[in-house]
Amino acid sequence: MTSPNTASAIGLVGFDGDDTLWKSEDYYRRAEQDFESILGHYIDLHDAGTARHLLKVERRNLAVFGYGAKGMTLSMIEAAIELTGERISARHLHEIVEIGRRTLQHPVEVIDGVREAVAAIAARWPVVLITKGDLFHQEQKIERSGLRDLFPRIEIVSEKDPQTYARVLAEFDLPAERFVMVGNSLRSDIEPVLALGSWGVHTPYAVTWAHEAEHGVAADEPRLRLADTAWQWPQVVAAIEAGTA
Amino acid sequence: MTSPNTASAIGLVGFDGDDTLWKSEDYYRRAEQDFESILGHYIDLHDAGTARHLLKVERRNLAVFGYGAKGMTLSMIEAAIELTGERISARHLHEIVEIGRRTLQHPVEVIDGVREAVAAIAARWPVVLITKGDLFHQEQKIERSGLRDLFPRIEIVSEKDPQTYARVLAEFDLPAERFVMVGNSLRSDIEPVLALGSWGVHTPYAVTWAHEAEHGVAADEPRLRLADTAWQWPQVVAAIEAGTA
Repeated sequence: MTSPNTASAIGLVGFDGDDTLWKSEDYYRRAEQDFESILGHYIDLHDAGTARHLLKVERRNLAVFGYGAKGMTLSMIEAAIELTGERISARHLHEIVEIGRRTLQHPVEVIDGVREAVAAIAARWPVVLITKGDLFHQEQKIERSGLRDLFPRIEIVSEKDPQTYARVLAEFDLPAERFVMVGNSLRSDIEPVLALGSWGVHTPYAVTWAHEAEHGVAADEPRLRLADTAWQWPQVVAAIEAGTA
Repeated sequence: MTSPNTASAIGLVGFDGDDTLWKSEDYYRRAEQDFESILGHYIDLHDAGTARHLLKVERRNLAVFGYGAKGMTLSMIEAAIELTGERISARHLHEIVEIGRRTLQHPVEVIDGVREAVAAIAARWPVVLITKGDLFHQEQKIERSGLRDLFPRIEIVSEKDPQTYARVLAEFDLPAERFVMVGNSLRSDIEPVLALGSWGVHTPYAVTWAHEAEHGVAADEPRLRLADTAWQWPQVVAAIEAGTA
């Protein structure tokens, strides 16, 4: 159980937050359902492709509003106005603002096995939480999750691309091959770290936002490992280290 | 011009971003004017106390939406619906979303003397940018300002209170009395650092958000210095160091 301090040993394990450590996407899905039931007063949801239009507006707005519940709410308001041809009432738009407020205040439910797995890994390797989205909302979720004590370092980033991970590794003064990232999103957590030469541990979540479902990760990537649940994380990271040492 | 490396010498100079390094409040004021001219179609702005109601809704929403242009936009939408008794049209609410988009995309104009002053200070002392608001929007503003090269470290925080500054000082492993913070807001940049025992350099900006205008800083605080313009910053910081060395 000792950590060999050689050049090739693992030097840092990163964890994603939303849908890796705690549930998140469920609340966004519920928000989408509430949104659609408001729109149902004005348009036929079965033939309008509402979800598709919403995703289109969301993506157009990502460059301006960024990720997170506030950007989503502004996108929903804009999509509702467009989709109803400006017929939607102020009262219903106010209900959409309320959807945003509820999403920002949702309870934070830590996923089964996460606390034990992160604690076991933190006992052997340095760990960091690398999470994307609204600074304010992410900080609130970290507090509410009760996991703050496990993470001496937290990085809240606006985009999870290779440059962002490279900057984090530079701050830790660590070569890419000694870094392992654990997350649910192939697009945000795995693909960019594989591109740098780091390791990715993928633990899929039950639901995935359509925007995150698009990725270019091959199933046979040599530095990609699959863990069905958080309970397997310590063992998977140990096996990566054993293979590189 | 050498920096004495004694325990009492200044070890870090922090700079606020909005309205200290670059103009910001002007764009929020313009947004408020555009908002009021939309509301003017529905209510008499002279007797309704619109700005007061907006500030009330903004403060109520700060705890949920946090600071920044996205939270402001959601607050404006909510205030407009409340102030008009739900009479506002979807088209006008869409215009309010556009106000938010414009505010997020405003050009970043660096304040006169800032670049020269920060460069002069960075040549003698370590510097850090400590800025509040939307992560995504603040990162965009730092890039657009052209000042990124002057700041090896950037801290984007969700609230500027004594705990936040204490955390930053802990990361730099620095006692409070060796830290100087430069900013336009007595409430956010000066009061919390004086409470820790650090130094504050106050450079007022022409306009101040009503929320930031409330503070508990006495004019004769021994660790408070006033600098009318950025041009004076290097000299003021040098004088603080000369007095403490």
